[in-house]
Amino acid sequence: MPYDDIFAKAEQAFARYKKLPATARAHLLRTIADEIDNLGDELLQTAHRESHLPLTRLTGERGRTVNQLRLFASLVEEGTWLEATIDTALPDRTPIPRPDLRRMLIPLGPVVVFGASNFPLAFSTAGGDTASALAAGCPVVYKEHPAHPQTSQLVYAAIKSALQECELPEGIFQHVRGGKEVGKQLVEHPQARAVAFTGSYQGGKALFDLACRRVAPIPVYAEMGSVNPIFVLPEKAVGNGEQLAAQAAQSVLLGVGQFCTCPGLIFYPAAEATPAFLETFAQKLRDTPAEKMLHETICRNYYHHLKGLHAQEGVDLILSPAEDILSGGAALAKTTLQQWLQNPALQEEIFGPYALVVTYEEVTELQQVAKKLQGQLTCTLWGTSHELQASSELVDLIREKCGRLLFSGVPTGVEVSHAMTHGGPFPATTDSRSTSVGTYAIKRFARPVTFQSAPQELLPEELKDENPLGMWRTINGQLSKDSL
Amino acid sequence: MPYDDIFAKAEQAFARYKKLPATARAHLLRTIADEIDNLGDELLQTAHRESHLPLTRLTGERGRTVNQLRLFASLVEEGTWLEATIDTALPDRTPIPRPDLRRMLIPLGPVVVFGASNFPLAFSTAGGDTASALAAGCPVVYKEHPAHPQTSQLVYAAIKSALQECELPEGIFQHVRGGKEVGKQLVEHPQARAVAFTGSYQGGKALFDLACRRVAPIPVYAEMGSVNPIFVLPEKAVGNGEQLAAQAAQSVLLGVGQFCTCPGLIFYPAAEATPAFLETFAQKLRDTPAEKMLHETICRNYYHHLKGLHAQEGVDLILSPAEDILSGGAALAKTTLQQWLQNPALQEEIFGPYALVVTYEEVTELQQVAKKLQGQLTCTLWGTSHELQASSELVDLIREKCGRLLFSGVPTGVEVSHAMTHGGPFPATTDSRSTSVGTYAIKRFARPVTFQSAPQELLPEELKDENPLGMWRTINGQLSKDSL
Repeated sequence: MPYDDIFAKAEQAFARYKKLPATARAHLLRTIADEIDNLGDELLQTAHRESHLPLTRLTGERGRTVNQLRLFASLVEEGTWLEATIDTALPDRTPIPRPDLRRMLIPLGPVVVFGASNFPLAFSTAGGDTASALAAGCPVVYKEHPAHPQTSQLVYAAIKSALQECELPEGIFQHVRGGKEVGKQLVEHPQARAVAFTGSYQGGKALFDLACRRVAPIPVYAEMGSVNPIFVLPEKAVGNGEQLAAQAAQSVLLGVGQFCTCPGLIFYPAAEATPAFLETFAQKLRDTPAEKMLHETICRNYYHHLKGLHAQEGVDLILSPAEDILSGGAALAKTTLQQWLQNPALQEEIFGPYALVVTYEEVTELQQVAKKLQGQLTCTLWGTSHELQASSELVDLIREKCGRLLFSGVPTGVEVSHAMTHGGPFPATTDSRSTSVGTYAIKRFARPVTFQSAPQELLPEELKDENPLGMWRTINGQLSKDSL
Repeated sequence: MPYDDIFAKAEQAFARYKKLPATARAHLLRTIADEIDNLGDELLQTAHRESHLPLTRLTGERGRTVNQLRLFASLVEEGTWLEATIDTALPDRTPIPRPDLRRMLIPLGPVVVFGASNFPLAFSTAGGDTASALAAGCPVVYKEHPAHPQTSQLVYAAIKSALQECELPEGIFQHVRGGKEVGKQLVEHPQARAVAFTGSYQGGKALFDLACRRVAPIPVYAEMGSVNPIFVLPEKAVGNGEQLAAQAAQSVLLGVGQFCTCPGLIFYPAAEATPAFLETFAQKLRDTPAEKMLHETICRNYYHHLKGLHAQEGVDLILSPAEDILSGGAALAKTTLQQWLQNPALQEEIFGPYALVVTYEEVTELQQVAKKLQGQLTCTLWGTSHELQASSELVDLIREKCGRLLFSGVPTGVEVSHAMTHGGPFPATTDSRSTSVGTYAIKRFARPVTFQSAPQELLPEELKDENPLGMWRTINGQLSKDSL
């Protein structure tokens, strides 16, 4: 089969990598981070040339990438994520004794990670998927994103150096170049155990379908973006129109609108001040010169979808940018709640600096919206304290549709921390039980195994009586750091 | 669509059920357990009549069923399962402040549970799937197993009484009668959010395929059984043949071999004493009169598959029972490792009181077996202390293929506790990341959501500053019961 050699190497590396002590795995993650830092300006310049993203943004993204690796290093050393769980034997229990049972998470095996065009560093070669897979103990077969091959090669070199420095096999991270057909073959390889992807709905869903049709299906964690609605409540809008417009516009423009969490849909109360809000919004967008998008295909798709939107009944384009080969000019459209409720096309993501403002009459109508809404990465509710307090019913409905629910600020800017969920119900992702950002991302690449009546010598350190790693474990249903 | 009414009712019930305090949810689970106990002998007699399982076994199974409900009640009250995780705001962080982030698991919504023929109580109407789904906060749409409709109705009545007693909506648990087409329609209903199933590979895989092909795919937790190999190491076999044969035979015969964890494959060293082991094994099986299987179709399939086995090259049937309409006579076959390695058909489960003994020459050959082995619910390694200590390489290979790895005892008898994993890599299940027995089973029916910068009043109790439920939570990466 294609890529047999790659997966044989990954499988061989897995046999050794899965047995490394947590400290060694953490050391590898930190060494990768250091090696990426060592790439210095060359990495930023290369990524800038390939992605057209500004250097300041890329500097931030590099910080995110290395911090993420270091965060997973600490997580792995700490060990709670393994869900070590021990039920001690009850030899005298009637009618039947209870055996000694010890459970923990173990790595799935070699996983396929796809690079993302919009984050050449933080969601690509050594991005969150790679970091969490390596942290879990899984070798990575990485499919580069064709939009930033040189950036990818540089980061790959950093990972290779780190593996050498740690005296670990090359098979722990392998870099594969190619397009869709290559991606397909990797996902279809019998030795692939899971897939991580960030990108378009079409791309993610295609991989999911391939993985389901395998002889032995495997999990696909595809983060496919969404429209990230903001609900502005009526009192909040009063007197704040200008500030809200500025805040929304800034979020829409971030990274030329090429963020998975770009707020592309804004529900706004129909009131006397609404035209002023729209005017400020348009003005803020207009004030920022069109910037280069990631690549021509994304740009072409952006203008193509804007045209499609223009053709929708009852949609007014307030700000309609002139088409360009590479620059994505901001766009703003408006429609009414009735139109939006009737037309599922108005829920579709337009990847780029664009937002659709939907005006509503009564705040109760937002419950209809929440019911109609597809799965989202984020939803945002802007209201006065008084309004928010009265919104528990709406909140109950909205939380069913997203992975993250914001009550202030903008959805762009996804914190890499413990409590983050970057995920959400389909079609935001193919697995609502997972997050692709934050420490819980590691759980995607592990599964439980239970050792029954095992001799101490054959148990992993994590499950031994004396708790040699000093970890939190659940013993007979109680969290504890005790030894047995 | 078919079953729109059922799912509308479930969705309506969900709106209320998901908001119940943990104590109220726990109370419902305990009340269901009490109501099942109240059914008394009638339940046992009915289940006996429909399933042909002996009353002693059914008494045990009822105990397991009600204990399971009570265990989930305690789990829900305790609250750690929710993975409440809080990252406090860092308003002064540069370059950008960190917002307040609070994450926890929330229920998926209405789930479809299928009854299993081989456990009319513990894996059926109010069995482990129902108990864990209700514990998670998900309404259940239950598809009864046609082999025990009256048992199912009795348990359904108990659940209805419990719902009434707790003044909760009927839509929390709905009971649907029907065959495969009904099951298909339930899985395909847009409002179904997950599926739990225990049964055959054909059945489970078909549901998985249906769920993948939905417009919005949903998780399917299908536990599809396996052959549960036992590996007997050479030293262990010396002098213990009779005892090992007796132990294996007893496990094979349990429930007329109709356990998902029935050990259908035994790797045994080829030695002088091997014929004696086989003879004792056959004798122990022969000594037990053939008992009635669950229903005629299962019995017919059993004999059909035995015939198919007989036709395999290099397989000797040592004990070949006379065919019957309902009684499943025990069967024993033997083959060599070389034959087994060559013939994938010899890995297939034969549901009934049957085992295949595979003789090997060198203990190192077992590593080849481990590599060739499909995913299993359990694997068992029987060896002397000395042999087990020398088996770490074999253990490393075997653990990749199963959900539970035993070092003594038999795989039948699945403890309902915290550290249990009743699951395993495909084709044992469709989701190796899950267990269908034990408290972790609850995780199947939940997904994370993160509240960002939420006012205290809008946060669930579990995430409020003062920790009103006194739960374990992860605060800035540290487990703690502290308030903020």
